[in-house]
Amino acid sequence: MRQVLLHEGSRQLDYEIRNIVKKAEELEALGQKIYWENIGDPILKNATIPDWIKEILHGLVDDDLTYGYCHSKGVLGTREYVAKKNNEKAGVQITADDVLFFNGLGDAIGKLYQFLNPHSRVIGPSPAYSTHSALEAAHSNKEPLTYNLDPENHWYPDLEDLRLKVKYNPSIVGILIINPDNPTGMVYPVEVLTEIVEIAREFNLFLVSDEIYTNIIYNGVETKSLSQVLGDVPGIAMKGISKDTPWPGSRCGWMEFYNRDADPDFNNYCATMENAKMVEVCSTTLPQKALPLIQEHPSFQPYLAQRRQEVSERSKVISSRLEDISYINFNPTNGAFYNTIVFKDGVINNNQFLEIDDAKLKAKAEDWVENVSSPDKRFVYYLLAAKGVCVVPLSSFQSELLGFRITLLEEDIEVLDQTFSKIADAINEFCTSDKEVEAVMS
Amino acid sequence: MRQVLLHEGSRQLDYEIRNIVKKAEELEALGQKIYWENIGDPILKNATIPDWIKEILHGLVDDDLTYGYCHSKGVLGTREYVAKKNNEKAGVQITADDVLFFNGLGDAIGKLYQFLNPHSRVIGPSPAYSTHSALEAAHSNKEPLTYNLDPENHWYPDLEDLRLKVKYNPSIVGILIINPDNPTGMVYPVEVLTEIVEIAREFNLFLVSDEIYTNIIYNGVETKSLSQVLGDVPGIAMKGISKDTPWPGSRCGWMEFYNRDADPDFNNYCATMENAKMVEVCSTTLPQKALPLIQEHPSFQPYLAQRRQEVSERSKVISSRLEDISYINFNPTNGAFYNTIVFKDGVINNNQFLEIDDAKLKAKAEDWVENVSSPDKRFVYYLLAAKGVCVVPLSSFQSELLGFRITLLEEDIEVLDQTFSKIADAINEFCTSDKEVEAVMS
Amino acid sequence: MRQVLLHEGSRQLDYEIRNIVKKAEELEALGQKIYWENIGDPILKNATIPDWIKEILHGLVDDDLTYGYCHSKGVLGTREYVAKKNNEKAGVQITADDVLFFNGLGDAIGKLYQFLNPHSRVIGPSPAYSTHSALEAAHSNKEPLTYNLDPENHWYPDLEDLRLKVKYNPSIVGILIINPDNPTGMVYPVEVLTEIVEIAREFNLFLVSDEIYTNIIYNGVETKSLSQVLGDVPGIAMKGISKDTPWPGSRCGWMEFYNRDADPDFNNYCATMENAKMVEVCSTTLPQKALPLIQEHPSFQPYLAQRRQEVSERSKVISSRLEDISYINFNPTNGAFYNTIVFKDGVINNNQFLEIDDAKLKAKAEDWVENVSSPDKRFVYYLLAAKGVCVVPLSSFQSELLGFRITLLEEDIEVLDQTFSKIADAINEFCTSDKEVEAVMS
Amino acid sequence: MRQVLLHEGSRQLDYEIRNIVKKAEELEALGQKIYWENIGDPILKNATIPDWIKEILHGLVDDDLTYGYCHSKGVLGTREYVAKKNNEKAGVQITADDVLFFNGLGDAIGKLYQFLNPHSRVIGPSPAYSTHSALEAAHSNKEPLTYNLDPENHWYPDLEDLRLKVKYNPSIVGILIINPDNPTGMVYPVEVLTEIVEIAREFNLFLVSDEIYTNIIYNGVETKSLSQVLGDVPGIAMKGISKDTPWPGSRCGWMEFYNRDADPDFNNYCATMENAKMVEVCSTTLPQKALPLIQEHPSFQPYLAQRRQEVSERSKVISSRLEDISYINFNPTNGAFYNTIVFKDGVINNNQFLEIDDAKLKAKAEDWVENVSSPDKRFVYYLLAAKGVCVVPLSSFQSELLGFRITLLEEDIEVLDQTFSKIADAINEFCTSDKEVEAVMS
Repeated sequence: MRQVLLHEGSRQLDYEIRNIVKKAEELEALGQKIYWENIGDPILKNATIPDWIKEILHGLVDDDLTYGYCHSKGVLGTREYVAKKNNEKAGVQITADDVLFFNGLGDAIGKLYQFLNPHSRVIGPSPAYSTHSALEAAHSNKEPLTYNLDPENHWYPDLEDLRLKVKYNPSIVGILIINPDNPTGMVYPVEVLTEIVEIAREFNLFLVSDEIYTNIIYNGVETKSLSQVLGDVPGIAMKGISKDTPWPGSRCGWMEFYNRDADPDFNNYCATMENAKMVEVCSTTLPQKALPLIQEHPSFQPYLAQRRQEVSERSKVISSRLEDISYINFNPTNGAFYNTIVFKDGVINNNQFLEIDDAKLKAKAEDWVENVSSPDKRFVYYLLAAKGVCVVPLSSFQSELLGFRITLLEEDIEVLDQTFSKIADAINEFCTSDKEVEAVMS
Repeated sequence: MRQVLLHEGSRQLDYEIRNIVKKAEELEALGQKIYWENIGDPILKNATIPDWIKEILHGLVDDDLTYGYCHSKGVLGTREYVAKKNNEKAGVQITADDVLFFNGLGDAIGKLYQFLNPHSRVIGPSPAYSTHSALEAAHSNKEPLTYNLDPENHWYPDLEDLRLKVKYNPSIVGILIINPDNPTGMVYPVEVLTEIVEIAREFNLFLVSDEIYTNIIYNGVETKSLSQVLGDVPGIAMKGISKDTPWPGSRCGWMEFYNRDADPDFNNYCATMENAKMVEVCSTTLPQKALPLIQEHPSFQPYLAQRRQEVSERSKVISSRLEDISYINFNPTNGAFYNTIVFKDGVINNNQFLEIDDAKLKAKAEDWVENVSSPDKRFVYYLLAAKGVCVVPLSSFQSELLGFRITLLEEDIEVLDQTFSKIADAINEFCTSDKEVEAVMS
Repeated sequence: MRQVLLHEGSRQLDYEIRNIVKKAEELEALGQKIYWENIGDPILKNATIPDWIKEILHGLVDDDLTYGYCHSKGVLGTREYVAKKNNEKAGVQITADDVLFFNGLGDAIGKLYQFLNPHSRVIGPSPAYSTHSALEAAHSNKEPLTYNLDPENHWYPDLEDLRLKVKYNPSIVGILIINPDNPTGMVYPVEVLTEIVEIAREFNLFLVSDEIYTNIIYNGVETKSLSQVLGDVPGIAMKGISKDTPWPGSRCGWMEFYNRDADPDFNNYCATMENAKMVEVCSTTLPQKALPLIQEHPSFQPYLAQRRQEVSERSKVISSRLEDISYINFNPTNGAFYNTIVFKDGVINNNQFLEIDDAKLKAKAEDWVENVSSPDKRFVYYLLAAKGVCVVPLSSFQSELLGFRITLLEEDIEVLDQTFSKIADAINEFCTSDKEVEAVMS
Repeated sequence: MRQVLLHEGSRQLDYEIRNIVKKAEELEALGQKIYWENIGDPILKNATIPDWIKEILHGLVDDDLTYGYCHSKGVLGTREYVAKKNNEKAGVQITADDVLFFNGLGDAIGKLYQFLNPHSRVIGPSPAYSTHSALEAAHSNKEPLTYNLDPENHWYPDLEDLRLKVKYNPSIVGILIINPDNPTGMVYPVEVLTEIVEIAREFNLFLVSDEIYTNIIYNGVETKSLSQVLGDVPGIAMKGISKDTPWPGSRCGWMEFYNRDADPDFNNYCATMENAKMVEVCSTTLPQKALPLIQEHPSFQPYLAQRRQEVSERSKVISSRLEDISYINFNPTNGAFYNTIVFKDGVINNNQFLEIDDAKLKAKAEDWVENVSSPDKRFVYYLLAAKGVCVVPLSSFQSELLGFRITLLEEDIEVLDQTFSKIADAINEFCTSDKEVEAVMS
């Protein structure tokens, strides 16, 4: 080509969560049955769509207007609906003009960082959800900036760490919250949210709250939406229908802009995202039209309650399999569909392994681990080859901790129990495969 | 805010095509009936979706898998299908791996320029389609680079202009073709395509061909797809289902990468777009699943033929109303849904006006035109206020010509004829409202 | 012009130290005698050049080779000489190849930051010497990053502040030391230098030490050169002949690169500065040829000793005039030619003034202070108009403290005493001109 | 290091003119006598400084004020003097405020491009003088933009090439003239200057004219200064005393700003360069004080006339040795100290060589040429090893032509003739060392 084609920041795009799939597919081709614990798609894990939702869609498919463009900011009635739902929480009040629809939260996250000045940074939690951390990093072509979630304290944010990083790094202009969190399953306590708002206020920052899992909280914990704790600080909530309906294939998410008028720069930032969407004409029409019909349907709340109940039960199955393993730090999940398991200091290393009988599978595993620097990747590859369970290594989530992420999506309780029994066995076998580690623990 | 929030390039996002809507809505609120000739949504102009398409969607709505994520590059079967359709044309051959699905062409166009180096530029046609020109400009924060389409020569590209601009501007790395073209309705002759490919080959550029209207060609003209003329030059075709099905609200478009292996930089560029989509997880599932079912349905080709026939008839109605007006340069439309009318040199100026009886409407118009620098905007605002016809001024399409864009979408022939009768009247009245212009013409 | 001409960072260039001169010149034109306490030129303050130095230059002027270019890195013999002088201190050892001559330290400082990546930052002391802070800011187009010098602790660096700022701001790649410091006259204690080196080592930074005043240390204090405390950390010392010979008009300064081989990135950085100088051909020849002849002359050390003695005496005159004033924080100067006087909290405000009898001078002062936001500028302008003493406000030195910088250059002790008597009077009069402040203090 | 240290553009700094010196020094160490034809330092080539100039400097050395800083823009009297000298030419009129002194033209050229927006470019002549082309390239991190000087037309600029490059490349904001030119020795005819001014006017550009050799024009040719042809177009002339006094080691050059008030952007650009110099305090004092004393001395004009006469005589010696060689394109030099010799198409290649008797020298040459891609470098290395003549290959001057640059500085006519006799022999021997080339020529 005549000149360099790529923007420097494009190097930051790399998505480990999907890369592990390629390895799993190689094993599948060799006959290994795979337990997919790597991606948050409820549909793939046997969630079924209830008939009343399908009925709503049948009705929309018959309407020619469903096929047309919608308003560049989103279907007006739907924006009015989500504004009303937010306003009912009695926090920051908004109108339909403060709502902007996207083609899923991936699209929304992309636009959030794309038009931010390369020198201005948003700090987010670590372990990090890759879509946020990779796109924030791509916008500035620097390593992601993160604050620590603490596995020794329920994965709650280390607020002292956050405050110091904000105070001493003048390039930070915003703080990201993912509540409930992916990949830890942590739900931010209200006091933590309040303190984060105070940090934003003190240093003149805006807040971003990814609330895609806001309807998936269980085990009795409680939190608040950003708009309920924000006061007069500028903020953006990011919401969608992928996870609760669940309809991830719809690519339907939105932003709610809070306190736009509190700051002209923030207002311009919001307006730029509106312009960016206007240039693309609009986001997908059908799911936007379906959204209020689904959420106002009399079956919706009972359906959500039942789904929360099911995830809660799965969380208990998982807890029962993992909570007593001495090699790991285990925090029960209270929100979203994920749990992050951390190995205790010193219990895994690059000498450990799992026994694999099948010669071809064993050869694969040994090939993969040869050049792996991080021992949690080594564990993950052995787990995949030996047990067929596909999880994502924690070192892929912008974390210096060693561990892996699992999901709580498997609808078949028997399969679920079987999967986590395999994981528990693998942890024990792997950790004891090096005698020196065993000595350390005892 | 603590620091500057916005990326410099964000200033380039501005979408005149939608801004005119605000003015039309102001008039509508005053009781004026509006003839919407400003946006390319067939559904809004009374296109109906045939029952056999709705049947296909009913079937998909009943399938739980329709609700899940698809592969990050798009549904495999659909990618195989579109690769096969391309390969049948016997040009550059591709596989499913060379296809990448997006949430509509707006999303695809955004990604095309977002990851391009800010110093590397893609030159496109003028008059320009705003989505391309604004996003290309935003990526480099400079004015769009354009080659001229010539209204005195059927709106064909001025190839000498293109060659010189490419030769002497080393920052140009790619050439954009929109075939059929929006906003001119021009269809690139095969010889023109071939010469553009030669320019790309000589200067080591890649080609981009936006073929969203590829199924909407009529009046007996012929062209070729990029893959049929490209030879071994690296190229990208952009396609979608918005305009032919028509299903603009689906947000379903795709890229086909040609000759990826011909150049490692180009291959990395394509891979970066794949990574960018992977980070967003995937594009919308339902329309991708529907695509091969619709296009392989026995009714699809007759349906397309009938739609082309209808647009062709509308093009003739429009021609009959406009072709004899001496104040304008009129080229009949042969593809897509648009026509761009250019005023001849010197026939419009900032003294001209249309009579408006209604005092409130007249006041609006006079207010709008007060600070308008470009006389084609003046005409467009008067046309809107006096006749209720909403068109887009040509000066909004990165052109130094004066004129306006109309659409060929109105399905009701009587309304169509009425609309263009109003436009014809408005041209004549406006141009004769200044006696000196009349003198020039005679 | 056809396009924007200026680089964004150029906005950061502004040099308050010289701007005050314009105001002083306005008063001079009105007949006011000016006591120039604003700029560090010994010659202007009546320093005389001894005959033995002039003899050396007469000899060089007679040699044709003095008129030619020298080696792009500087005259070889002179580089060997300064390398030897460094090596005698028994710290990091260098050769002539590790020395690079510039046209004065201003040129050297410019090149230091010009080729640094805009995202990579060097943190320096506050109050800041403008040449460093403005050029560092221009390179990244962001506010200067600074660590605090503490007026309540002898102006020593606040090491906790420095450590936290370095730790939590990943864009910091280097630390600047100015030893002795301009504008505070502070000399870094050896333990402080050692701790700063440890911070650099821990966070993988390089160190820059501006040692232009290294020969002007007195009153019995001691410090070390960077090369004596650096160990194996990469570092750059900046030296020159402006201040000790004194020969500021020679524009002759140099860098010494320490531990280039310790890090390939640092080595490339040094090589880039060599390339930048090579592109300009070389630096000025005459002073380089003179440097070893002057510094090895038997009169040089006695001459330096005498000059230090003189500055020390002046520092005592100044102390006697200022040390007992209750409104200010006064730290005696121990190095370089400057002292920075800080007003205590709350003692100055925008209501205070000095009496001025002359109507024209009074009008000037009142005009200047009308739009002044910072009360130290108000004091400085009144001091200039009322007493004719020209000093630089501390708010011009990237400091949030209020105060002003004075110099220790006046050779005529009587004039010196008179000047500081005026300053002392002005402080007392200004602070007591607002009754409320007086109340606070008592 | 903690982060990337270098600015991207720093890769563009590379100075071939000095790199050849390293090779020559290797040969010198082996006992080869070197004829230095590579660098423009008259002093090294035996130019002597007349006593009346030394007398002026002796006088200044005795004055203490010579040792102090001067005004940040330069010594006022000297700026007034050079403004008056410009104004006497009756073109654009300036005052002392329009003059800005630098530490030599290298410093001035550096500042010229450093603060220019990276997207805005200055086009200059090819073959290019490296200081301009490397620093312009570094500011934008792109290849230099050049217009062709035509060796088949007296090295005059190809104005059609310049016009097309300017017209079609909107990033060009300025045109550089080097008059007389280095490395070709061409003097721009007045009509050419006038046409270049017209191009600048048409496209709203500024002009830069490097006139360092303005006093070294001979053989009866005539040209004009930029200020004499500029009219109302914004422009900058760059002048100095390195070449005419000659005093290259003084590092004393200046800019004259013409028509600052014609354009506010241009005015800001000039002001930014003044600020940049102010931040560095000032440029070197002694040569500025000497400048008017030297140039107004009654011996100066006769001295210049004699020097021009001498260079003219040398140009004739060189012409007599080279003008009849059929393998090259030879244009006699009429200005400055250089000539660029171009090999005709096809006469040199990578098979050719010169005979070298000494085994060590031969080994050096064969080692150097092994990886050389450009045959003019091959010739230059053989010339150096076989004949001891050190010249600079033309491919180092941003040119696609093959050839080399020589100088007209050797004061000893016998040595000069000997040197060019060796060069002539080398051309003939090298070109005939490949029989196929000989066949082509006959």
